[in-house]
Amino acid sequence: MQATIITIGDEILIGQIVDTNSAWMARELNKIGVHVYEIISISDDREHILSAFAKAKQQSDLVLITGGLGPTKDDITKKTICEFFNDKLELNQEVLDHVVRLFKEYVKAPMVDMNKDQALVPSRAQVVMNQYGTAPGMWIEDGHAIFISMPGVPFEMKSLMTDSVLPRIKEIGNLPFIHHRTILTAGQGESTIATRLEDWENDLPSHIKLAYLPSLGTVRLRLSSRGADKDFIIKTVADQVKQLYVLIEDVIVGESNDESLVHAVVQLLKDKNQTVSTAESCTGGKVASLITEIPGASQIFMGSTITYATQSKVDILDVDADIIDKYSVVSEQVAIEMAVKAQLKFKSDFAIATTGNAGPTQGDSDAPVGTVYIGMATPSNVYGLHFMMGNHRERVVQKTINKALELLQKELIEM
Amino acid sequence: MQATIITIGDEILIGQIVDTNSAWMARELNKIGVHVYEIISISDDREHILSAFAKAKQQSDLVLITGGLGPTKDDITKKTICEFFNDKLELNQEVLDHVVRLFKEYVKAPMVDMNKDQALVPSRAQVVMNQYGTAPGMWIEDGHAIFISMPGVPFEMKSLMTDSVLPRIKEIGNLPFIHHRTILTAGQGESTIATRLEDWENDLPSHIKLAYLPSLGTVRLRLSSRGADKDFIIKTVADQVKQLYVLIEDVIVGESNDESLVHAVVQLLKDKNQTVSTAESCTGGKVASLITEIPGASQIFMGSTITYATQSKVDILDVDADIIDKYSVVSEQVAIEMAVKAQLKFKSDFAIATTGNAGPTQGDSDAPVGTVYIGMATPSNVYGLHFMMGNHRERVVQKTINKALELLQKELIEM
Repeated sequence: MQATIITIGDEILIGQIVDTNSAWMARELNKIGVHVYEIISISDDREHILSAFAKAKQQSDLVLITGGLGPTKDDITKKTICEFFNDKLELNQEVLDHVVRLFKEYVKAPMVDMNKDQALVPSRAQVVMNQYGTAPGMWIEDGHAIFISMPGVPFEMKSLMTDSVLPRIKEIGNLPFIHHRTILTAGQGESTIATRLEDWENDLPSHIKLAYLPSLGTVRLRLSSRGADKDFIIKTVADQVKQLYVLIEDVIVGESNDESLVHAVVQLLKDKNQTVSTAESCTGGKVASLITEIPGASQIFMGSTITYATQSKVDILDVDADIIDKYSVVSEQVAIEMAVKAQLKFKSDFAIATTGNAGPTQGDSDAPVGTVYIGMATPSNVYGLHFMMGNHRERVVQKTINKALELLQKELIEM
Repeated sequence: MQATIITIGDEILIGQIVDTNSAWMARELNKIGVHVYEIISISDDREHILSAFAKAKQQSDLVLITGGLGPTKDDITKKTICEFFNDKLELNQEVLDHVVRLFKEYVKAPMVDMNKDQALVPSRAQVVMNQYGTAPGMWIEDGHAIFISMPGVPFEMKSLMTDSVLPRIKEIGNLPFIHHRTILTAGQGESTIATRLEDWENDLPSHIKLAYLPSLGTVRLRLSSRGADKDFIIKTVADQVKQLYVLIEDVIVGESNDESLVHAVVQLLKDKNQTVSTAESCTGGKVASLITEIPGASQIFMGSTITYATQSKVDILDVDADIIDKYSVVSEQVAIEMAVKAQLKFKSDFAIATTGNAGPTQGDSDAPVGTVYIGMATPSNVYGLHFMMGNHRERVVQKTINKALELLQKELIEM
């Protein structure tokens, strides 16, 4: 089964919002064995919507559409669906009751005609109820293809997908098993790793695909396969991963099917029953906010201080002012002091500290733009490391976050 | 001039990464008057790339391609470009010298053949030098259309676009002026606002387009227009915005062409020469990290504490333990106490505090999932507000962040 995802909305094409819906949908479809052939973003324009529908129908069995279902005039998806299927809108009583109830329970303002129009659906569409909003999902079967239209509001779309759409697609059945394993490496570039893996890569069975995903300081190797025989696929991929470990053991830092370093770190902390806190300066709380994004983080995360202003490092974290005076605020000694004080104050097993100058301007220290120190306090050790992270603000911060998480991961793996 | 953006890479279609490149490119193209017709994501598959190129050429004058330029085998964009244009790869000495220099300066590992191959480019392509990486940009003119291929690594693509591609597109000239103004509202739903604006919206000049962009607790109204006569466009849009202010003054909280509340708040803080700190519990540092993402934030941001664990509220922030005991950790009193202590400790003019239970589980308090208190300390006042934010973790956090920033914005506007 092959899918096309269509997102409708001018806001995407003028770059006002980043389309995060498609990635989420693609990941969930992938998990149940649906291959996503194409993701396409188009504007709220009748002709463009019609031609995208026609192309999607030609190339796929499943067409997932988000956006353009709001009550206001700029949203035209529903009436364009009618035009495409030569259908007309009809009032759906179940949706109307739901809209009325939502207004009664959650909205203080009175209902207007526009809200009632949310209950109009194409006559041949099966309604997929939207628990969290007034725009219903619509499921339309047409020949070999199924069109599913959903609101663009992420949590509404996610709830529709999770509760109704994905289970129903699974029921249709005959889906292959899709399997990915992603190995995280750090310390060597993709070409160096690829050269080391050349013979192995050439001998990979044809049903296994390899991708290199370089990021700042890390390269992820993703092995993918799909087919009807789940056990065979899992086993053959596992065999190859085993060979991979032998070939590049020195650079492998872990494996994560959630694909992110922070997931791997949080899992390690949970597995080893350890806690962490952070004392962040140049990363501005991003290490903490990545960790706390993961449900259940409160088990392993004790807290954080973000001490952007130099004086606040003293006032909040009790960093010794003499150390700042002697070594400057961006220094190995201050990074260590911050980590030690965070560990102490938050009573955590580990603490990570960051201090640096991400630019674009000089800030409170003499350190050149790009200078970063990461401090690490473990149950048995403390140390600080110096890095030059370039002169690109966003990248300096991102590299520092990755490096901090990578250091913590190594500590946890080795303990 | 009309553009199609094509992103190439399996990682997007299996949902392993979110495509943020396209939104950035679309925004930058928009700014210089290029209309983005379509954004399309496809896999590293020869036939699919060829058909996407053909379609893009048909529908646009400008085809911007990212991804698939790495040195490893899974990346096939360059050779597929050759196939599409019936061209062959040639060694480009300037690129080779650049790759050699990059390796000498930044990479510790020795260069391998694969790295040298980065200097192979289609013979008819003009090279666009990539300062930060080994994959060059390529500019190919073909009849009415220009194809530009760039690496998928965001900062490499951004640097190529900013330094070379965008200025060169501007030079081609004859670009219309594109203008957007986005008015932020809070407190009423989109349908209520749309009903209030019905007559005005019906009378909008045809060259002005209106869009409603609802988000959690806010609706943004975007007026867009484009054409050759810049002054005329700016003036007619401004006239309509003036009318809009009269019609819905009570719900308008500001205007931002950066489109985000946090930009508006940071600008207000700078304009009014005020500073802020945050004391975050349920938002896990996200308010601080949003603020510090903006270059120059150090001018207005003093710091933050993230006190996830209850005891850390006492240890780090000096929250009075008796208040926690008496009112519980998720309470108006604790939110106020956190804000006051943050204001004091960070010596900031304003302080925002969040405490709540975002779920999925109960946490350290008896408050039901979705309960949030926001504390606000201003130069002249302190208060705490209670909210029920639903039972969807991600959404509870996002709504709390929006609400906190909105409250701060109101305080700043009114001071």
